[in-house]
Amino acid sequence: MKPLQQITVIGVGLIGGSFAKAVKEKKLAQKVIGFGHNPERIQKAVQLGVIDEGVCDLKAAVENSDLIMLAVPLGSFAQIFKDIKPYVRPDAIITDAGSAKLSVVNSIKDAFGEIPRRFVAGHPIAGKEQSGVEAADSDLFIDHRVILTPTEETDSDALECVETLWRKLGALVEKMSPQFHDEVFAATSHLPHLLAFALVEMLNEHPELGNVFKYTAGGFRDFTRIASSDAVMWRDISVHNHTAIAKWLQEYRDYLDEMIKLIEKQDAAALHELFLAAKTARDTHIVARTDAQ
Amino acid sequence: MKPLQQITVIGVGLIGGSFAKAVKEKKLAQKVIGFGHNPERIQKAVQLGVIDEGVCDLKAAVENSDLIMLAVPLGSFAQIFKDIKPYVRPDAIITDAGSAKLSVVNSIKDAFGEIPRRFVAGHPIAGKEQSGVEAADSDLFIDHRVILTPTEETDSDALECVETLWRKLGALVEKMSPQFHDEVFAATSHLPHLLAFALVEMLNEHPELGNVFKYTAGGFRDFTRIASSDAVMWRDISVHNHTAIAKWLQEYRDYLDEMIKLIEKQDAAALHELFLAAKTARDTHIVARTDAQ
Repeated sequence: MKPLQQITVIGVGLIGGSFAKAVKEKKLAQKVIGFGHNPERIQKAVQLGVIDEGVCDLKAAVENSDLIMLAVPLGSFAQIFKDIKPYVRPDAIITDAGSAKLSVVNSIKDAFGEIPRRFVAGHPIAGKEQSGVEAADSDLFIDHRVILTPTEETDSDALECVETLWRKLGALVEKMSPQFHDEVFAATSHLPHLLAFALVEMLNEHPELGNVFKYTAGGFRDFTRIASSDAVMWRDISVHNHTAIAKWLQEYRDYLDEMIKLIEKQDAAALHELFLAAKTARDTHIVARTDAQ
Repeated sequence: MKPLQQITVIGVGLIGGSFAKAVKEKKLAQKVIGFGHNPERIQKAVQLGVIDEGVCDLKAAVENSDLIMLAVPLGSFAQIFKDIKPYVRPDAIITDAGSAKLSVVNSIKDAFGEIPRRFVAGHPIAGKEQSGVEAADSDLFIDHRVILTPTEETDSDALECVETLWRKLGALVEKMSPQFHDEVFAATSHLPHLLAFALVEMLNEHPELGNVFKYTAGGFRDFTRIASSDAVMWRDISVHNHTAIAKWLQEYRDYLDEMIKLIEKQDAAALHELFLAAKTARDTHIVARTDAQ
């Protein structure tokens, strides 16, 4: 990987801030610039040592950078791509941390007239409940997967550069198509988030039950933890990955219909088989892996 | 509360074992007997100091006891009620720790020919991922709710005795009807368990996705933690609370249908409103409470 002179991070929240801080700490670029609309927030990021310099002007933010990382809600991508297009150096790499990939690829294609060869779409599978630059953590990506979704247009040098950068931050990089990414994360991430939001909101002040949350225990708390996630972020994900999400919600809903039939029939054997298969799968693939970490 | 000479716990697993151990430690009875079918397991409970004496004979277990606690899977209640009926002293209190209450009340009514006046149905809202007597923990019930579901038949002395006993173990006792209990826990506990089992099993070796669990992170792990619960216990709960569970699964499934429409229409405003309402409710009722504990 060619040494990077300057990296710009657009959106210095939890993910952008953690990326910037890790790049700085590992000295993977001579200078890390952060862009944000709010001067106070961006100065806060400088004070916290997350970025070297903070700017509120997109031209100044990107015109001298070798690599530009977008870490903003998906709803902001289209406008930012349009705004930076005149100023990005032709050899600069553009990458991102958005949770849906096909919509990001389509956004940059719309803004640039084609998919830039040096655009490498990415998605780090990391996070925590806290948000904002104060929660930035340079160890956030260690042993976490980062999915890169190159297209036929993607330049192999640019892809290698982004891949190397993530590996140096401790991440496990994997490549797949934007389409497959969106299916996988609709099923494994977007679907459970929507299911948790739905359960909490359905029970919230339910006319038959009153304040029923007081009867909940640890199981409910863990099940619904992701329903405390940022509403704007999930609005954007739902809209930008709507096709895959609707498909998996529909499949899940059909699955529930089958389950309702088993419950109504009191089919103990079939229910036991289903629960045991789920428990075995989880104990094998989720618990075992967690214990190993 | 009249001092208790002898308590019998039928089923010395996590809940029964924790109850027995706590009663012993707090000296709330002169003798705590444990009943189990497996001689080795029940001797293990004696060795661990969970019970004073272990027996595998139901007559010997119950004939001299002031209070009998059933802490077995719901599927075993009907048989145990029939088996103990000839030996239970007329003044003995019978209580239980089952997760569904109407089916337990109906079971004892079937076995005894009427609901015994000294039967007090109960449900401690406590647990942990580990099961078995080795996980017994005398602090398990501290600051946890215990729901008692007396009926019109229930003797007020017996109710007070069971209530006092749980309070002395540190629990927060609340009373409601068996019907309302079953609705509340179908909605807040049984429903999320079934939703978690369903998601894991739907995704397990899904033909479109392969081993997709490797792409999951902390959100999925927490959401599905309850899918690692005991399959027999959840088979029994599903069957014994089938009416209320089917009703709430159906309501949730209808709620998902509405959500699918919003996703398909890409109705950003309505989705944001839903997510924010859920997040606010959870942050208010679940997170705040947890922080306070």
